Amino acid sequence: MKCRKCGKTAIINLRHHNVAYCAEHFKEYFEKRVEMTIKKYSMFSRKDKILVAVSGGKDSTTVWFVLAKLGYKVSGMNIDVGTVPADVNKLKDFASSIGSELITVDSRELLEGLTVPEAAKIVKRPVCSVCGSVRRYIMNKVASENGFTVLVTGHNLDDEASFLLGNLLNWNLDYLRRQKPVLPATEEGFSKKAKPLVLLTEKETFTYAFINNLPFSEEICPYSKEATSLHYKHMLNEIELKHPGTKLRFYDGFQKANLFEDNMVVELKKCNVCGYPTTTDVCSFCRMKERLKSAVGEQKV
Amino acid sequence: MKCRKCGKTAIINLRHHNVAYCAEHFKEYFEKRVEMTIKKYSMFSRKDKILVAVSGGKDSTTVWFVLAKLGYKVSGMNIDVGTVPADVNKLKDFASSIGSELITVDSRELLEGLTVPEAAKIVKRPVCSVCGSVRRYIMNKVASENGFTVLVTGHNLDDEASFLLGNLLNWNLDYLRRQKPVLPATEEGFSKKAKPLVLLTEKETFTYAFINNLPFSEEICPYSKEATSLHYKHMLNEIELKHPGTKLRFYDGFQKANLFEDNMVVELKKCNVCGYPTTTDVCSFCRMKERLKSAVGEQKV
Repeated sequence: MKCRKCGKTAIINLRHHNVAYCAEHFKEYFEKRVEMTIKKYSMFSRKDKILVAVSGGKDSTTVWFVLAKLGYKVSGMNIDVGTVPADVNKLKDFASSIGSELITVDSRELLEGLTVPEAAKIVKRPVCSVCGSVRRYIMNKVASENGFTVLVTGHNLDDEASFLLGNLLNWNLDYLRRQKPVLPATEEGFSKKAKPLVLLTEKETFTYAFINNLPFSEEICPYSKEATSLHYKHMLNEIELKHPGTKLRFYDGFQKANLFEDNMVVELKKCNVCGYPTTTDVCSFCRMKERLKSAVGEQKV
Repeated sequence: MKCRKCGKTAIINLRHHNVAYCAEHFKEYFEKRVEMTIKKYSMFSRKDKILVAVSGGKDSTTVWFVLAKLGYKVSGMNIDVGTVPADVNKLKDFASSIGSELITVDSRELLEGLTVPEAAKIVKRPVCSVCGSVRRYIMNKVASENGFTVLVTGHNLDDEASFLLGNLLNWNLDYLRRQKPVLPATEEGFSKKAKPLVLLTEKETFTYAFINNLPFSEEICPYSKEATSLHYKHMLNEIELKHPGTKLRFYDGFQKANLFEDNMVVELKKCNVCGYPTTTDVCSFCRMKERLKSAVGEQKV
């Protein structure tokens, strides 16, 4: 297998594009594709102040690295929710190696001293669900308090295609409406959100991280066993093997079909307690905090 | 495992409904569910003259049998396309045993003496695609020439869910628009079409056919290897194992979401040659016939 560009031995075969590349030209392809994705979906420009959610895994490390390399103004933020703590010193070293900075937040500061799994147990919700809402809340808070104009996550095509499949199998219309590569900022205070790796597969992202020697962790969250999205990923990979390009066609076709646009109007107001955008008087995060506060209070008494 | 109704040993466990039944009560459940489906989607009444497409397989044999048993006016029609010929004498015996009649059509009569696989080779289209359009054409023709008011097929939930998955993975919007349990008759001459088994799984249909001793063939069309829908069925079965009820939720949720209604207006006229509804001056069937005619003519010369 030869590189389409230079004829050297290829290191990766992209069957969905019917092309193979050597390491050097794969890097070039990957970075161009990120740039194309940013433009295609009007994600952000070099004037924006971008905050990347950084877990220490391959996807977030890659998107952080590639945006810095492409000349975007980017900072990383790591949130310790008490499940898989990242090696913060390693992340700080990485940040300075790419000329970026790292912001760290410990979710215990906002959750009455509890980790996400502890809080989930008290409010009787799945860990993944609490983790998601805590992360969203903190990211939005840090972004709006520090003048960041865009929140970036490292979701890749495999992530998005498997969410999409799960949302279609169960017709979760609310999730389907919001499943976009970019969500605009809202008047009520939600930051703009973007996923620049959304047209790149897990395999492509992993390969890019690997050949750039990015220091990523492969530790898997012990709670992810709960996630049926892993099962959907596996299914999509099986189809992709037989019909290369299915994942991309599936995700891109969904965006083009644009079926859920009309009903997107949801009345939002500011939470009475913290000012976070919400549909109710007090946002779900503050209501959870209230429950945690009384639970922790009872334990102390 | 006990029957929910009578406490006898159950013969089938319907995990998606969280219920088990003995043979007798499963029959009752199945027939009630067909009746419910007919009413839910306003498919037809006992005044309608119904034509069932009969291949000799379990699904078409079952729907033919159950509609006759429920007191609907129903005739069977078998089309021999030259792939898996049915045992016509057996079908005729079955027809009289349920007080119905059998109409038989040989597609060679309409295809210049050619079978569907032979015709497909000449027009360079996949066999399954030609087979589908030939069957649709003949069914519609026989129905309109003989005063049938509804065309019925035996598609079950597994069929429909796997079509739906394939159509969503590839965003075949035209197919998605038409994927309904019932399609109304059109002014231009398309017959009404209905799928009364659409809320019953393959396993349920097979079990019903088996315990009623229905004489069905298990021969598989040799061309069905082409059909990726088998692969989608397999995938959905895997999900169903982990999450019972997914197929039903997926199909029913799609119907409820009703996303594709608005764009359904397509201008149809009558084919200049045969009068069949079409978007072009000459319908695709007549155009295919024209190509076959010249191909067969060339062979004779």
